[in-house]
Amino acid sequence: MTIPISEQIEIIKRGCSELLLEDELEQKLAQNRPLRIKAGFDPTAPDLHLGHTVLLNKMRHLQDLGHHALFLIGDFTGMIGDPSGKNTTRPPLSREQVAENAKSYQDQVFRILKPEQTEVVFNSAWMDRLNAADLIKLAATHTVARMLERDDFGKRYQSNKPIAIHEFLYPLIQGYDSVALRADIELGGTDQKFNLLMGRELQKHFGQASQCVITMPLLEGLDGVNKMSKSAGNYIGITESPGNMFGKLMSISDELMWRYIELLSFEPLRVVRQWQQDVGNGRNPRDIKVLFAQEIVTRFHSRQDAEAALADFESRFRRGGIPDDLPENILQAGKEGLPIAQLLKQTGLTASTTEALRMIEQGGVKLNGEKVSDKTFRLSCGQMVIVQVGKRKFARVTICEEK
Amino acid sequence: MTIPISEQIEIIKRGCSELLLEDELEQKLAQNRPLRIKAGFDPTAPDLHLGHTVLLNKMRHLQDLGHHALFLIGDFTGMIGDPSGKNTTRPPLSREQVAENAKSYQDQVFRILKPEQTEVVFNSAWMDRLNAADLIKLAATHTVARMLERDDFGKRYQSNKPIAIHEFLYPLIQGYDSVALRADIELGGTDQKFNLLMGRELQKHFGQASQCVITMPLLEGLDGVNKMSKSAGNYIGITESPGNMFGKLMSISDELMWRYIELLSFEPLRVVRQWQQDVGNGRNPRDIKVLFAQEIVTRFHSRQDAEAALADFESRFRRGGIPDDLPENILQAGKEGLPIAQLLKQTGLTASTTEALRMIEQGGVKLNGEKVSDKTFRLSCGQMVIVQVGKRKFARVTICEEK
Repeated sequence: MTIPISEQIEIIKRGCSELLLEDELEQKLAQNRPLRIKAGFDPTAPDLHLGHTVLLNKMRHLQDLGHHALFLIGDFTGMIGDPSGKNTTRPPLSREQVAENAKSYQDQVFRILKPEQTEVVFNSAWMDRLNAADLIKLAATHTVARMLERDDFGKRYQSNKPIAIHEFLYPLIQGYDSVALRADIELGGTDQKFNLLMGRELQKHFGQASQCVITMPLLEGLDGVNKMSKSAGNYIGITESPGNMFGKLMSISDELMWRYIELLSFEPLRVVRQWQQDVGNGRNPRDIKVLFAQEIVTRFHSRQDAEAALADFESRFRRGGIPDDLPENILQAGKEGLPIAQLLKQTGLTASTTEALRMIEQGGVKLNGEKVSDKTFRLSCGQMVIVQVGKRKFARVTICEEK
Repeated sequence: MTIPISEQIEIIKRGCSELLLEDELEQKLAQNRPLRIKAGFDPTAPDLHLGHTVLLNKMRHLQDLGHHALFLIGDFTGMIGDPSGKNTTRPPLSREQVAENAKSYQDQVFRILKPEQTEVVFNSAWMDRLNAADLIKLAATHTVARMLERDDFGKRYQSNKPIAIHEFLYPLIQGYDSVALRADIELGGTDQKFNLLMGRELQKHFGQASQCVITMPLLEGLDGVNKMSKSAGNYIGITESPGNMFGKLMSISDELMWRYIELLSFEPLRVVRQWQQDVGNGRNPRDIKVLFAQEIVTRFHSRQDAEAALADFESRFRRGGIPDDLPENILQAGKEGLPIAQLLKQTGLTASTTEALRMIEQGGVKLNGEKVSDKTFRLSCGQMVIVQVGKRKFARVTICEEK
């Protein structure tokens, strides 16, 4: 490799929440070989959104530095399902479902990762061979007190919420995966730090060099509050259409925009700093948002798609005289969605649902620039819309699932 | 069966610490079939002493009522050894060692149990077939909080003493043994109650009728203080010679005698009550001790052996003019034993070790009626002796291992 180690480390650290331990990483890089970069994924939910890409991008940057990505699908526990059998929403996956989900993952992740430097691995390959005695030996490596140090376990124990004993085994299994893979680095969200450290400890126990641990921040959803997730309905899926993706990105608040740029943009830091300066000097943040949204749509689709999405967006809204500083509204809805009349009342665009229904009848309500004629129309969770009532009343609305 | 259920229950309950649940036991007995009685034994230490026989006797009484004994050797965990690998005093047993220890167990237990109604079983038979996923499902049946309810776990957790995670799996494995064996009743010491209840819970989880649980009191050792155990050196092994066995039993205090009779004698309760009355009316407790010691020696050897042991004992001590109310002395010694001169000084039979050595030189010291000539003689842990200095000074001494 020709890039100096210090520069590699700078690239690796960009956007990270934590790197443990930097001097060990230096030593590994000095070995001048492709490092084995592990990241684990849930086999039950193969729909990736921008939140996942924070980590995948880091993996890609490591690939650009010549390293080898191990895309680990945790199918062993997925095929167990909920071992207590109580949670019927988590039925055990069949091998066929695992293979199908893995296929779906690959279709998505290769929009970011380089296939020739990526190995998709399944932990059932080694976990299926582990017998009860092996698992007992694994369990003997750690204490109950150590497990209760994990933030969520400790809190649940303190507040008398049940922790099933097998839950103490899962971090050990995740750690053992690092042993089986001889991982040099493991990536995960900040909420995974404890489990990633298990990998370090177990590798040491099994006589291997301990992996370095890189935690990535969790990306907030479109509401700017909760972690981006499919269940919260505040996400942008990486297979969404260019138009949807572009529109959702344009709808985020200016504050959230900087956070997204920090975690998702590949623009050099000096460019980002220049943008911040420009906005400080009076440039419309919307201009930056357009550049950023273009970058993301280009990444998952193409430059052409990004330009078309922008043109479409502008033709619909810009020429409709939508002001730049639309009020943000986050509304909650159940699984059945939110009726349009409710939306109009809750945003204050109409004084009542009665008025709302009358305005729809009169053809005075538009969603994303298109006239609404169905008075029973419902908006579903995750939708981001710009609503217009009459000529001058506008609001930007995100529908989130009720907590 | 011809014995009424209420009478069977009375027999079963005699000497028990606890029976859970009596009405369930009634129902099982009413099925009028041989019940499956489980008791688990440690495959690493096949030396049985009278302490173990409290439980084995109960098993025998159940056999006399027509039931079927499952003598379970926990070889699965024995072959794992100390899974952390830290405790070198607990190396994993080989299959050959397990078989050897099992053989040794059988030689001993068939002095109490009826071979034709006893099945020796090894939990490796089903545990070796359990894989990691099966063990995870087993672990999912119970919570961390439930495990910490076990007295020793709770205390260790509270006092920050480490509990390795696999220790939470062992009670589950013991409970799962009851499932595999379809046990109707499990016997254990009072210290095993938590683990026996696991069996009940897991059988229910696996759709079986829950076993009844019978806990037996833990027998105190010859010192009358600590639980009888080989490591404490305060035991009577069931393969000890008739003379040793008889002598040790004769050496216990009068108070401890009643406890031993309660837990070890098969004499009908009315006989025992008569003895107590007699002693209350002035009969020498030593007479009762002789009857009891005879019963035990007869059980493990023969009536003839018991009579010979008594005759030998009497010829050595009685005619030597040993008083009936000898002072009891419990002395501690390290692994290297206790030098005879130390013993004489510590019991106060001589004023100093110097005097002790002089008395030995003069031929004035006897152990169990035999003259001591070796001034460097050491008594080892577990030994029970009657020491005589000169004509009139006597003491009864038990040597225990230092804590």
